[in-house]
Amino acid sequence: MSITDAVKRVIVGRRLASAQLGETLLPKRIALPIFASDALSSVAYAPDEILVTLSLAGMVGYGFSIPIGIAVGALMLVVVASYRQTVHAYPNGGGTYEVVTTNLGPTGGLMVASSLLVDYVLTVAVSVSSGVQNAEAMMPFIQGHEGIVAAVVIVFLMTVNLRGLRDSGAFFAVPTYLFIAGVGCMVVWGLFQMLVLGHPLRAETAGYTAVGTSSYDPLTGFAMIVLLARTFSSGCAALTGVEAISNGVPNFRKPKSKNAATTLLMLGVIAVSMLLGILAMARMTGIKMIDPSSGSYFVTPDGRHITTGATTVMGQLGRAVFDPSFPFGFYFLVTMTMVILFLAANTAFNGFPTLGSILSRDGWLPRQLHTRGDRLAYSNGIMTLAGGAVVLVLVFNASVTALIQMYVIGVFISFTLSQYGMIKHWTRHLTTETDRGARAAMKRSRVINAVGMVMTACVLVIVVLSKFLHGAWLAMLAIAVLFMMMQQIHRHYDQVREETSNIDPSDLALPSRVRAVVMVNTLNKPTVKAIQFAKATQPSELVAVTVAVDPDETAEVIAEWEANDLSVPLRVIDSPFRQITQPFLDYVRAMVSENPRDIVCVYIPEYVVGHWWEQILHNQTALMIRTRLHFMKGVMVTSVPYQLRSSKILMDRYRARERDRARAVVRR
Amino acid sequence: MSITDAVKRVIVGRRLASAQLGETLLPKRIALPIFASDALSSVAYAPDEILVTLSLAGMVGYGFSIPIGIAVGALMLVVVASYRQTVHAYPNGGGTYEVVTTNLGPTGGLMVASSLLVDYVLTVAVSVSSGVQNAEAMMPFIQGHEGIVAAVVIVFLMTVNLRGLRDSGAFFAVPTYLFIAGVGCMVVWGLFQMLVLGHPLRAETAGYTAVGTSSYDPLTGFAMIVLLARTFSSGCAALTGVEAISNGVPNFRKPKSKNAATTLLMLGVIAVSMLLGILAMARMTGIKMIDPSSGSYFVTPDGRHITTGATTVMGQLGRAVFDPSFPFGFYFLVTMTMVILFLAANTAFNGFPTLGSILSRDGWLPRQLHTRGDRLAYSNGIMTLAGGAVVLVLVFNASVTALIQMYVIGVFISFTLSQYGMIKHWTRHLTTETDRGARAAMKRSRVINAVGMVMTACVLVIVVLSKFLHGAWLAMLAIAVLFMMMQQIHRHYDQVREETSNIDPSDLALPSRVRAVVMVNTLNKPTVKAIQFAKATQPSELVAVTVAVDPDETAEVIAEWEANDLSVPLRVIDSPFRQITQPFLDYVRAMVSENPRDIVCVYIPEYVVGHWWEQILHNQTALMIRTRLHFMKGVMVTSVPYQLRSSKILMDRYRARERDRARAVVRR
Repeated sequence: MSITDAVKRVIVGRRLASAQLGETLLPKRIALPIFASDALSSVAYAPDEILVTLSLAGMVGYGFSIPIGIAVGALMLVVVASYRQTVHAYPNGGGTYEVVTTNLGPTGGLMVASSLLVDYVLTVAVSVSSGVQNAEAMMPFIQGHEGIVAAVVIVFLMTVNLRGLRDSGAFFAVPTYLFIAGVGCMVVWGLFQMLVLGHPLRAETAGYTAVGTSSYDPLTGFAMIVLLARTFSSGCAALTGVEAISNGVPNFRKPKSKNAATTLLMLGVIAVSMLLGILAMARMTGIKMIDPSSGSYFVTPDGRHITTGATTVMGQLGRAVFDPSFPFGFYFLVTMTMVILFLAANTAFNGFPTLGSILSRDGWLPRQLHTRGDRLAYSNGIMTLAGGAVVLVLVFNASVTALIQMYVIGVFISFTLSQYGMIKHWTRHLTTETDRGARAAMKRSRVINAVGMVMTACVLVIVVLSKFLHGAWLAMLAIAVLFMMMQQIHRHYDQVREETSNIDPSDLALPSRVRAVVMVNTLNKPTVKAIQFAKATQPSELVAVTVAVDPDETAEVIAEWEANDLSVPLRVIDSPFRQITQPFLDYVRAMVSENPRDIVCVYIPEYVVGHWWEQILHNQTALMIRTRLHFMKGVMVTSVPYQLRSSKILMDRYRARERDRARAVVRR
Repeated sequence: MSITDAVKRVIVGRRLASAQLGETLLPKRIALPIFASDALSSVAYAPDEILVTLSLAGMVGYGFSIPIGIAVGALMLVVVASYRQTVHAYPNGGGTYEVVTTNLGPTGGLMVASSLLVDYVLTVAVSVSSGVQNAEAMMPFIQGHEGIVAAVVIVFLMTVNLRGLRDSGAFFAVPTYLFIAGVGCMVVWGLFQMLVLGHPLRAETAGYTAVGTSSYDPLTGFAMIVLLARTFSSGCAALTGVEAISNGVPNFRKPKSKNAATTLLMLGVIAVSMLLGILAMARMTGIKMIDPSSGSYFVTPDGRHITTGATTVMGQLGRAVFDPSFPFGFYFLVTMTMVILFLAANTAFNGFPTLGSILSRDGWLPRQLHTRGDRLAYSNGIMTLAGGAVVLVLVFNASVTALIQMYVIGVFISFTLSQYGMIKHWTRHLTTETDRGARAAMKRSRVINAVGMVMTACVLVIVVLSKFLHGAWLAMLAIAVLFMMMQQIHRHYDQVREETSNIDPSDLALPSRVRAVVMVNTLNKPTVKAIQFAKATQPSELVAVTVAVDPDETAEVIAEWEANDLSVPLRVIDSPFRQITQPFLDYVRAMVSENPRDIVCVYIPEYVVGHWWEQILHNQTALMIRTRLHFMKGVMVTSVPYQLRSSKILMDRYRARERDRARAVVRR
């Protein structure tokens, strides 16, 4: 089993054939990087967004970065503690969607699903945008073209995923560890230089003064509180992806739950340490960030105004710590940051179609997305995701600051509902559990989940209130629209099921006779094939029908008909207004009403071609007639395909795809 | 017969049922406005473009407006004389495309057709843009939004034409006569005021000085010659539409050819008089026009610079002549100008799809566009035309000056080829004609057509040379692309015909047996219907096949199958990788190769629904399977439609459309 599948299962919470599973269980050291790229990558942009938001209050704001970081870190540990309960409760793995559906019913599950779908799109947009901004630290010429560059990266990820990613454990594990190592070295070496060697490290923005648009009034302070709330909300982006491990429990080596819980704790500790380490270094090196679009600007020591944004925190830190003595360290850090951000985006390309497939199984999305083997399902999902993300990065020109206003809402909706589901889970189990020790453990778990729920719900409220007008409304609208759309689809499927089930004796009545009609335009090989096929079915009556649109053409068809001995009568229908479809439909309708107990079977010769543009040149009338015939009761429509030589091209391509697909499937 | 049809026939040159024709032959007084709106409307913008182009040379340029007008008028009379020969030679009416195809072969005809198709798009764009600019004289708030307003007008014309225009003779005749009357009154009343009453009339731009970008050097003069050539080319827009009458000869009362020739002469005289009258009035009232986008500007008497374009010539003249004493005259003139321009655009909405239908009949365009009665054909043509014109007016912001650079090329290609075709026509007839009088007449006609050909060919060269870099290259590229595309389509149809004709005895071999397969997903009413229909055809073998994607669902299908006595075996195909399409196709492929002399008939139950979004929710897998089955020889695919309740909505809509269509067709 490849890692791609492991990631899929993480989100899906569903088993493959057990025969395949035993041999591929993951040790903690491999599971951590697989499930952590999303969660760890967000520490690459969370510090930037904390500093950018604080800059609205000017120089005074930056003083709050460490407290905000500690608050985010504390929240992260609470969420980790909560999800450790889920890990123990669902040792077979429970995707958030499935845990919530089980405990809160389908409406709750659907709300989580809508939130997750929207958040997948934002994960791609935010991660890729941040990756591009980090790349700018190395490649300044990107500046001004961020939107296009990000769109190209997304299209590249889409293409790779459409072709089927041939990845391995190392592909995910190596860059994740290199990223952790890079940030660790940067922090340790930086602190060593400053605290032990006494070298003061200065970031490129250290000498600047940031001028913001909010003012800090110590007496009323309300504006500052609002600003801190917004900063905290932006910092909460660091929590995205934490839930991944809890869903992937079945992939861990035994004892599964224990190992998964330990890995989760490790993830939490590493993420919090990185976040706080980066924030501390940023403070010590004097990094300042601004959001030029909000009206903030820098003043340089010599009095110039700078109204463009600064390099990313990671880029500035890398340069300050490594650049003079060890430039490789800078390039390494920035490259690894970029790679892990693109990898994080890539996980969404697995998660989105997989969740789509589950939703489809439950009847919330078109059913044809369900069958996992069919290329169609995943292709549609991958393209929808990429399309949404490309629109976002182009509209917001890949500005993480703008995109992050929409992010996090979905994550916290699913956190909160997931914790609420866990409370219900424990309460339900407590009604049957009699063992005192087990009861005590359950009650303790319930308390942890309750704390988690209260905290995440509060954060959700803070996020909604502080970001609503800045863009969160758009994400909420998207979630609501998805929610209603999926409900509508479900209702439709229910109606159809109700309408088509309950087979009664009248459905089993056998039609008395089959009367066959062959549609004839010209008498050529495809038509002859249709006639011979129709004859082979031995209908009670067989007639060929042509519509007389052009007198010359009709005369020619009749002459050819007589020249070839087809032993089928040709009926010519008059068309005073030179239509084809209408007179033919009228003819069939008359046949049906003549004898309603018979079936009329209409044979249509169809051309099979190899190029899309050839497709436009053929079968259009046939398509229209078939569509319209479908509305008549007692009629069935048979296509008799005639393979033109050019169809070989397309057939060969289909065959090649089948082989590729089969090979890819076997390898999993 | 309505006027719409008359206009169609003008372009098509083709008869309706003769029974209908006798009662509706047109007297000259009705035929003139029907066939003249396009040709006369161009005198509304030709003077503007002459003055705008001359303004590049500054004040000195305007002095050439009358000589240029006389040259255009002379050319118009030559073209009229040439087409009078066509009228006599083709008393049954010959569309330019058909005359050229007959005399010069299909390549010439195709070149004319490509030119005409491109010119139809430009007719719509230019006429509507000019109409909007004239409307600005009354409604100044349009300024700055010309592109959008023009696009809205085009979409309105499209909608009207898609719904089927219910027009009458008066609808075309009245505004055309009112326009002629309006311009006539304006010229006569203006001259009377100036020459008899001695009132000097001054246009609003009379006091301005125009500063151009070209300089007139009397010694070398080359720049001026180039400029005059460009001006003449722009003025030639006045000639568009002249050929209409020659194509509509069969619609005239007897003696057809004579009446048509007289009407053509009347049209020429009226158009030339109007053009020269307007140019003379413009000169006398001191009208100046500039093209701000080329860098020209106005200087007012008090020294201000004006860099926006002036009101249209028609608007300025109307104001100068009527405004102080009789403002109604101004509004009337401008409104009629606008209306006739929109009517001219509307004629293209008939001409374009009709020409498309003819090209389709001859195998140059997709064949389904041929059948005139089918709504599809005309809808596609109308929407293509509107789409192209909307793009043009939006890209060029409805600037007539920009659009006219592309115009006229196509008209002169078809003029030149048409005259060349006529020369061939006379030469061919001279080889057989023995009567001396007739020979003399033919020789005289051939001389006239030769003069016409030489003149139009020279103008074509002048137009191409003087406008190529200003936009004509785009029109020529479009013509070339259309030309090659239609050749490619023709080649494809030829190949297919060659591949599918010549029915040989092997085609007549009857398959030995029919083996039927019913595709089963769930056992419901649609599936039962498919099974019962399949049974009714009494195949030699009948089997129901389901793919086991989900073990629970499969178990349910098997249980239901056993509960209902369907007397058909159910085969369950294993799908190790949870695909549906692939295992099913493999199964059918195995059946076919087992016994190649049999046919396999696959029955697919299909859901018939009423809304487009419901369509997305059903039949997708069926569609994919059907598409793939078409590539297998010896397989036919039968859709057994099951009409869900919601399908009634769509069926009712189809029925209503049929009734509308039938009514519209009968009325013609």
